Amino acid sequence: MGKWVYLFTEGHKDMRDLLGGKGAGLAEMTRAEIPVPPGFIVSTAACKAYFEAGRCLPDGLWDQILQALKHVEDLTAKRFGDPAAPLLLSVRSGAAFSMPGMMDTVLNVGLTTEMIEGSSGPEGPRRFALDCYRRLVQMFGHTVKGMDDAVFDEILDEAKQRHDCRSDAALTADMLGDIVVAYRQAYHAAVGEDFPDDPLVQLRQAVEAVFASWYGKRAVDYRNFNKISHDLGTAVNIMAMVFGNRDERSATGVAFTRDPASGEKILYGEYLMHAQGEDVVAGIRTPRPIIELQRDLPEAFAQFRKICRMIENHYQDMQDLEFTIDQGRLFILQTRTGKRTARAAVAIAVDMVHEGVINKKKAVQRLAPEQIDQLMLPVFKPESKQNAIARGQRLGTGLNASPGAASGIAALDADTAKQWAEEGKAVILVRPETTPDDVHGMLPARGILTQRGGATSHAAVVARGLGKPCITGCEMLQVDVGRKEIRAGDRRIRQGEPLSIDGTTGEVFTGAIDTVPADFSREGPLVELLGWADEICNNLCRHEKGGAVRKGLRVWANADYPRDARTARLFGARGIGLCRTEHMFFEQERLPWVHQMILHAAEAQNLYNTRERLEGELLQRPQDRQLLSDRQTVLEKIAASEAVRKYEVALTRLQEMQQGDFEGLFAAMDGLPVIIRLIDPPLHEFLPRYEELLERVTELRTRLDMATLCGGALPPDKRLDTAVMQTELADKALLLEAVKTMRESNPMLGMRGIRLGISFPGIVKMQVRAIFEAACRQADRGIRVKPEIMIPLTGHVNELKHVRSLLESEALQVLEAHHARISYKFGTMIEVPRCALTASEIARHAEFFSFGTNDLTQMTFGYSRDDAEGKFLRRYVESGILPENPFQVIDRDGVGRLMLMAVREGRRARPDLEIGLCGEHGGDPASIAFCHRVGLDYVSCSPYRVLVARLAAAQAVLATITRDK
Amino acid sequence: MGKWVYLFTEGHKDMRDLLGGKGAGLAEMTRAEIPVPPGFIVSTAACKAYFEAGRCLPDGLWDQILQALKHVEDLTAKRFGDPAAPLLLSVRSGAAFSMPGMMDTVLNVGLTTEMIEGSSGPEGPRRFALDCYRRLVQMFGHTVKGMDDAVFDEILDEAKQRHDCRSDAALTADMLGDIVVAYRQAYHAAVGEDFPDDPLVQLRQAVEAVFASWYGKRAVDYRNFNKISHDLGTAVNIMAMVFGNRDERSATGVAFTRDPASGEKILYGEYLMHAQGEDVVAGIRTPRPIIELQRDLPEAFAQFRKICRMIENHYQDMQDLEFTIDQGRLFILQTRTGKRTARAAVAIAVDMVHEGVINKKKAVQRLAPEQIDQLMLPVFKPESKQNAIARGQRLGTGLNASPGAASGIAALDADTAKQWAEEGKAVILVRPETTPDDVHGMLPARGILTQRGGATSHAAVVARGLGKPCITGCEMLQVDVGRKEIRAGDRRIRQGEPLSIDGTTGEVFTGAIDTVPADFSREGPLVELLGWADEICNNLCRHEKGGAVRKGLRVWANADYPRDARTARLFGARGIGLCRTEHMFFEQERLPWVHQMILHAAEAQNLYNTRERLEGELLQRPQDRQLLSDRQTVLEKIAASEAVRKYEVALTRLQEMQQGDFEGLFAAMDGLPVIIRLIDPPLHEFLPRYEELLERVTELRTRLDMATLCGGALPPDKRLDTAVMQTELADKALLLEAVKTMRESNPMLGMRGIRLGISFPGIVKMQVRAIFEAACRQADRGIRVKPEIMIPLTGHVNELKHVRSLLESEALQVLEAHHARISYKFGTMIEVPRCALTASEIARHAEFFSFGTNDLTQMTFGYSRDDAEGKFLRRYVESGILPENPFQVIDRDGVGRLMLMAVREGRRARPDLEIGLCGEHGGDPASIAFCHRVGLDYVSCSPYRVLVARLAAAQAVLATITRDK
Repeated sequence: MGKWVYLFTEGHKDMRDLLGGKGAGLAEMTRAEIPVPPGFIVSTAACKAYFEAGRCLPDGLWDQILQALKHVEDLTAKRFGDPAAPLLLSVRSGAAFSMPGMMDTVLNVGLTTEMIEGSSGPEGPRRFALDCYRRLVQMFGHTVKGMDDAVFDEILDEAKQRHDCRSDAALTADMLGDIVVAYRQAYHAAVGEDFPDDPLVQLRQAVEAVFASWYGKRAVDYRNFNKISHDLGTAVNIMAMVFGNRDERSATGVAFTRDPASGEKILYGEYLMHAQGEDVVAGIRTPRPIIELQRDLPEAFAQFRKICRMIENHYQDMQDLEFTIDQGRLFILQTRTGKRTARAAVAIAVDMVHEGVINKKKAVQRLAPEQIDQLMLPVFKPESKQNAIARGQRLGTGLNASPGAASGIAALDADTAKQWAEEGKAVILVRPETTPDDVHGMLPARGILTQRGGATSHAAVVARGLGKPCITGCEMLQVDVGRKEIRAGDRRIRQGEPLSIDGTTGEVFTGAIDTVPADFSREGPLVELLGWADEICNNLCRHEKGGAVRKGLRVWANADYPRDARTARLFGARGIGLCRTEHMFFEQERLPWVHQMILHAAEAQNLYNTRERLEGELLQRPQDRQLLSDRQTVLEKIAASEAVRKYEVALTRLQEMQQGDFEGLFAAMDGLPVIIRLIDPPLHEFLPRYEELLERVTELRTRLDMATLCGGALPPDKRLDTAVMQTELADKALLLEAVKTMRESNPMLGMRGIRLGISFPGIVKMQVRAIFEAACRQADRGIRVKPEIMIPLTGHVNELKHVRSLLESEALQVLEAHHARISYKFGTMIEVPRCALTASEIARHAEFFSFGTNDLTQMTFGYSRDDAEGKFLRRYVESGILPENPFQVIDRDGVGRLMLMAVREGRRARPDLEIGLCGEHGGDPASIAFCHRVGLDYVSCSPYRVLVARLAAAQAVLATITRDK
Repeated sequence: MGKWVYLFTEGHKDMRDLLGGKGAGLAEMTRAEIPVPPGFIVSTAACKAYFEAGRCLPDGLWDQILQALKHVEDLTAKRFGDPAAPLLLSVRSGAAFSMPGMMDTVLNVGLTTEMIEGSSGPEGPRRFALDCYRRLVQMFGHTVKGMDDAVFDEILDEAKQRHDCRSDAALTADMLGDIVVAYRQAYHAAVGEDFPDDPLVQLRQAVEAVFASWYGKRAVDYRNFNKISHDLGTAVNIMAMVFGNRDERSATGVAFTRDPASGEKILYGEYLMHAQGEDVVAGIRTPRPIIELQRDLPEAFAQFRKICRMIENHYQDMQDLEFTIDQGRLFILQTRTGKRTARAAVAIAVDMVHEGVINKKKAVQRLAPEQIDQLMLPVFKPESKQNAIARGQRLGTGLNASPGAASGIAALDADTAKQWAEEGKAVILVRPETTPDDVHGMLPARGILTQRGGATSHAAVVARGLGKPCITGCEMLQVDVGRKEIRAGDRRIRQGEPLSIDGTTGEVFTGAIDTVPADFSREGPLVELLGWADEICNNLCRHEKGGAVRKGLRVWANADYPRDARTARLFGARGIGLCRTEHMFFEQERLPWVHQMILHAAEAQNLYNTRERLEGELLQRPQDRQLLSDRQTVLEKIAASEAVRKYEVALTRLQEMQQGDFEGLFAAMDGLPVIIRLIDPPLHEFLPRYEELLERVTELRTRLDMATLCGGALPPDKRLDTAVMQTELADKALLLEAVKTMRESNPMLGMRGIRLGISFPGIVKMQVRAIFEAACRQADRGIRVKPEIMIPLTGHVNELKHVRSLLESEALQVLEAHHARISYKFGTMIEVPRCALTASEIARHAEFFSFGTNDLTQMTFGYSRDDAEGKFLRRYVESGILPENPFQVIDRDGVGRLMLMAVREGRRARPDLEIGLCGEHGGDPASIAFCHRVGLDYVSCSPYRVLVARLAAAQAVLATITRDK
């Protein structure tokens, strides 16, 4: 039997795994002598034990709860269940990781009918007692018994209407008495038993409900999305109630110690007079800005401001506080690290360094790398926005709750939003207000718009956490979920129609508005922070076994075009880790040449191969007349061959075009390395799809057949132009045959990558000539070129040996012709498992490795990404069969193990081997951290991920340093 | 500078790597005082040095040759280049591995025009000298200068015709003088210089030609086919000439010390009087059986017989000898282990054990496992053969040179044979005689038939080596290559027409004749030998690190049907390692049910999933009315659903059918384990192909369109039955949509294996119920059932955990219902690289591993086998990029490394883990040896490979024991 229960005085802030974030915070505040109502915490261990026992309270827990309760009774001088001096409790969940609004709360636990009867006692007048009881029944019914809130809301609304009361406050004690009776009846009808009148029964059921909610759908969804383990469990915080709704000297509110949107150093928050905490968070009444509290309750405000600074200094970070003022007396109910926009996170981190509160390393660790995306969120194109305003598309303005601009079609409930998003549509979720039940629709939405709620309402908090644009409290809108429409005055936007929101300004527009990327150079604090990140990567070294010193991880970028390379460099990329040469082939004016090359490659290459074979044999039997005559025949065939001619013309044209691309790349990356990958995809990907051709050819054939059958019988105006059809048929049938020969049952594992290079050396030789011609030309112009040739899909060292010798001699020819001296490298992708497994051999023939973790993941798992994602991968991740999508985050146990083997054995064979990664994982912070731990030199990601990756790289370096110590 | 040259007296039989097989044999014989002409050997090291130096004799080699030459001069009392007492030499290649006919030979080196002029000397009369010179010019021209033999043959034939000589022997010295002049002219014309008249120039060029021939096309082809390294190089044997063609007391021949076809202990061979050795091997004259030599040269024969026994005892194996009798004096020119048919190999090995010459272990190692295939070669179905004879299809009879029966179309040259074989046709290669130039056509042919040549002719020797049926010396046939036809009396078989040959009897038939497998139980010696092999596997244990004792490798079989299981057991399989349940789905009467199951699976499973989800949520909120009502709705939908009904009916029918299959399997394998793999292939493989449907639907649509357009315009007899077409269109269009949803871009890596089981649990649950119902029923009948359930394509341990718990509870339900106690196992295929990489986790949830090396090879290499084999794999193997086809022989460095990791880490996690292999590699001896070294418990192969595998397993065990010592 363990210790399951901790008094606030027994804990501290480092116990969040055991006590949850809230609990550890309450304990820490209690230690720091901050006014917190007395209470205790049931640990996360108890929660885990509860589930392990098959949803049964573990031995000893209840006794420990009763003992702790006695302690709270002593401190408050009240007694749980005593109508004379009743101690009421709040029961709240609190996991180790903050999950806003995800878990359930029950207030006023311990309140019984007997107490209401005797409610002239110290807990105040009968009306107050009834109001508390009403809340207890509703919260308990909803949270513990899974009842629909609407049942209670309807009763309340109906009563208010009947008595013509505008607000809850206008309800008299008698009215509330009737409402309570109706609530209890509704409870009985739904649950099948009376509302429990025993305080201990209330408490026990509430505790179990908190536990059970850990596996509630919303909580599971949130954890899946945020990649939080399901094994942690939640703690339960049990605390003496204090009442912001007791009287007019009472209030409740939430506040951030700095502005969570901009990061500015001002108190930021809201409060409601004469209200309970739930009223603020739920956005039922629109609360007042915190600054006005100075007027309402000046003493309490002054004390609050002091405590805020105290708490911020204590935690060395911006805090998010819940407070209640009970008859003028201030209580802090909760503190936690405040969620903030990326902009605020950067500003606060940089400010705190300048204030001397934290150092640069801490600042760099303060921001989740993904948050940078938010900073670089698109904004509306200024002229498009002006036009929209001019055209009268602006509907109105709400609270700018989370920045960024977004357009999408309006979805008025979470299910619709989710469904449309899954169909690939951009969606704006529009709700009267949001609750935790809406999270599954908020996750995939582009932006969120609510009619009610303030800057700390559920919608605002969650949207900021997700980094999505959000506008709350846009009161001029009428969101009519029933009719599936939004009304703004006499205007009507139906569900499914486009909307645009600017979360930075709070403006709402009808129609879609073009967006543009944010301007990095204007983000001063971010530039400063990432400068510190680079410093860390450059200066902090890691000492490997054997004494080698390895620099921190660098960030390179994947770029196929000069404009991408320029963006990447602007964002701080230190090299190009992947230029996909075949992307250039897909351009409109090049495709005809690519087709010509492909359609004649096989025939031409066959002739070349025969020539080569004969020449090899002639080396052995130089006087063999038969061989000499065979060679002559082949040479003549080559000279006369249409295929050879067309193949060579196409190659020449493509070489010219590719050369131009490469010149641009080298210029953009002057002085930095540029890795160019030779052609990778199967050739048939450049041709029309087989199925389309088959369909068209069949149609034409049938049509011509039928035309023959009934041609004469048709009136002249209906006769078909068979000549045109026959011409098309002949062309298409030829193409169909060509594609048929080339198509494969599993193209991913077929004729691509280095296999193409070996079968059609002409194509890769052309590419290498283009690269070196471009390099020589740019070198002549004074540009420092550093070309690196990357061979894709190597699986056996002999492939590499063969192709490398072929290509390197091509490169040397170009260099000799230009009398140029350019240092270059030849290397390989590591994307086939066998390549990783034989890395020591491979490294002897490769000067660099670049992990292609997309393909490596496909082959290591045996997943075809195209097929898997739709068919089973999502289900695998949702149901926990896979901890995460391995195409997003590197799978450490499988793919990662191969990487580790390849790095170790590759470096053993060639100590100066340059090793990077160029799959999509290069932009994923968790994967970047793994890459650093494995010992990679760089990660290469898309230009727009470079900022994220720079921060992630620095954090990865810091994590290793810390760990190594 | 090394020692490049070894006198025969300096070597011995263990130096074959350095001296080549022939050289080591000559040296060994010289040591054993067997009469061998004196000579010396240029080592393989010299050959390698020659190539390393860019085809240039290494330093010191020539001097060493001259020195050794002097030694031979002393022993023979002749002088190289001395017209008075000329020493002539034979120059022959000899690599470490025997390559019959692959390498080139030059005889009579050292003969000059001056010697012919003075040919009254001790080398005999002028005619003999001219005959020797003629042979020298032709062999030198062909072998050293790459001339076509036909050039010389034409001159000879023309001269014989002109002088009306039937045989070479009838040519007079004058005639030969003219021929020699013509030969020299032809030589000059082809080579562009005079035939060298300097003996040392002849010798030097001959040595270099032997070296060069190592990389000749034929040699490279042979090595590729036989998987012999290209790095070994060849030695050169230089030996004093002796002459079987000197006079009527001279002869030459070849002989085996036992019958190489049957293994009987009798001298077996042939000789020619007054002839040189090449005449026998080339099959130009049909030689006489060796026994007749007793009459021609009784003394020499007696000596020869004695020497044969001596040599066989010396080598403890049957030998293949070349001998020459020069004026009554016997010389042994070469000895080597005799090639033999599999039948002979078995008989000789078993006899030698009974004779006490070798022990059982040696006997088991005497036979290449692949040779067993030859023993079990098909024979003609007796009644089919009788019918063919009755119908007069028997053309005639030749020498039964290599056993086995084969049918195929006649190909009259090697290129045609190769091409047709590559097109998948069964081919019989028919030639006047074969030469090394025909090997590329012999390799892919089903059988070989020659008009000329004896039992030791090129065709016979190569065919026996390849284990192919062969008939030689079928003199009643006229093989007319020019006209592409075979004539037998007045019958004419054109190229491309079918032929059948019975290599066991020597009979040739027109037309194709059905074949049946050989009867194993009648192969007494083989049964005895394999019994010894099993003894070795059972009795010889291997002590692993940590003290574990591991039995030798066992052989199991892959069997989908009871009949296969019975065959496997007859052949000695100790279990079923793989039953592919889906093969049963493809049967004609089952396919409609399979279609029904597939087409409704998704819809039905969706409803089940919703029900399951709701029931899960109800566990948490049992009183939630909404959930209760939702569940009710789903239950009603399920009850009303057509899809669910059809899905369940199909599953029930299939369960009944599969249960019957499994009952048969368990009965056949009474007492032995049976591994049953759950459904593996993508479901769309059971449906019609997408392309076919698309084509048909497009055609119907177009036709109906056109019918509408011109229907009225057509005369009544031409009108289309649009109603029928519309019905078909509706059906096919539905099917097309279904297949479209299911098809994948890379099905190999898509929705198959365990992924199917997770998505459509209904199907695998049905299979498990069928297995356990069958097991229970057979157990009731007293059969000892040992079912093992195998899950395919596992990649992550959670997949296995999930599916295993689902299925094991299904199994327990069946067992409980039957009150049965059956021990069973759950295990997994290891075929996804990630599964091997995480084997320690996997082993915690699997009781056995079975390597699916087909898929593991596909994913480790990134090869789709279907695509790769045709498109690049053959080229890769031919050009040496891959040392061998990894789908035939396990790739040790990549796939093997994964296997080793999985075995080690799997056993560490679960020491009693049963590990086997069930890919095609299970029947490949090299792969079997690897499996044993890695520590597998068994290999499972197709029933007809079980015999091969048993022998290979024993040899693998012996190899480890030997190595471990």
